[in-house]
Amino acid sequence: MKISVVSKILEANDKLAAANRMAMDAAGAYCLNLMSAPGAGKTTLLTRTIKALDGALRVSVIEGDIQGTYDAEVIGALGVPVMQINTGGACHLDASMINDAMKEIPLMETDLLVIENVGNLVCPAEFNVGEHIKVMLLSLTEGHDKPLKYPLMFQESSALVINKLDLAPYVDTDPEKIKRDALSLNPSLKIFEVSCKTGQGIGQWVGWLREIHSLHRKNTKASA
Amino acid sequence: MKISVVSKILEANDKLAAANRMAMDAAGAYCLNLMSAPGAGKTTLLTRTIKALDGALRVSVIEGDIQGTYDAEVIGALGVPVMQINTGGACHLDASMINDAMKEIPLMETDLLVIENVGNLVCPAEFNVGEHIKVMLLSLTEGHDKPLKYPLMFQESSALVINKLDLAPYVDTDPEKIKRDALSLNPSLKIFEVSCKTGQGIGQWVGWLREIHSLHRKNTKASA
Repeated sequence: MKISVVSKILEANDKLAAANRMAMDAAGAYCLNLMSAPGAGKTTLLTRTIKALDGALRVSVIEGDIQGTYDAEVIGALGVPVMQINTGGACHLDASMINDAMKEIPLMETDLLVIENVGNLVCPAEFNVGEHIKVMLLSLTEGHDKPLKYPLMFQESSALVINKLDLAPYVDTDPEKIKRDALSLNPSLKIFEVSCKTGQGIGQWVGWLREIHSLHRKNTKASA
Repeated sequence: MKISVVSKILEANDKLAAANRMAMDAAGAYCLNLMSAPGAGKTTLLTRTIKALDGALRVSVIEGDIQGTYDAEVIGALGVPVMQINTGGACHLDASMINDAMKEIPLMETDLLVIENVGNLVCPAEFNVGEHIKVMLLSLTEGHDKPLKYPLMFQESSALVINKLDLAPYVDTDPEKIKRDALSLNPSLKIFEVSCKTGQGIGQWVGWLREIHSLHRKNTKASA
């Protein structure tokens, strides 16, 4: 009984996620679902990314938070369209929330739609929202044991961005262990090492974003 | 329909939490539910705490992780009884898991039972497991916006331990804003600032633990 309720909720979520994806594809918007633990630096990475893209891709953002509009205000100040979802306590975004938020985003004028999920290393990985790729961010300060302790997010993501490299001299985290364990869970995971504070590594990350966006656009046109 | 299912789950959880509490009280074990985001340093705080207590309180530990026994091995090496719960994907501990784990803990020889919850700043705060107090740990590296973005955990906790003070010179976090916002959510919140790396502030934290334990023991005896 309990299991059947859960599976019906997931089924409804997956149907809505597919509908979201169709609307994104029709508009030519490539969608990235950005996930991390609280305080890993999602909003700062997004700020760096938007500035580094410098208009090369038109970015729109959906911000997910339990309450408040703090991150949306930061992103809005950069002059890109942004929509805030307040989950009111829920620990992840789902396809229904994204379906509502998409209506407020100028999708036809969006090349890259970034969804900043609620800060949580567990639940967001369980819910597809219609994104083309999932990317996760891990702060070096969180320690090198995270891949083996929170495996699902590392398995579900296409790319892992390791942030706060500037703090490497002051923490006991071994980035090589993070990379080794993450790749053991997901051999095709693309890994970037950055400092959103100093800008280190942002060029490679943004170059890859432009590359996968361009590849997606070619594939979409080829199949149209 | 969906709501009634959820409320029944919570009702069952609360009943079991009350049963857990009765068993703890009967054994004279004071129970602390330790919560934080992933990588804030729960296991390191626990290690420091056990060493600083140096047998003044007999500690037992229940470790909650999605998978693995990494933290239980660290705690077990200190020579205290430890039981590992693997949630198999679930993002928080509930009263039923604690009920099972308690059977494996020598409760009669335990003064302080510490439950290390799954690393998550959202869901663990929603589930009572029978604990006498909830304590949350926040790393300075997570930023000063966390109280207003994740209010429930700050509201539910009796104490907030701010960790990684040793990294203060290298991050842009304002600890005064953390304290101000946390106290606005929960005026009776007790706040400690520590570095589990250097040991700074651990004395005050452990002193307080001994104080509330002693107070609880007096109250329990008075009402018996």
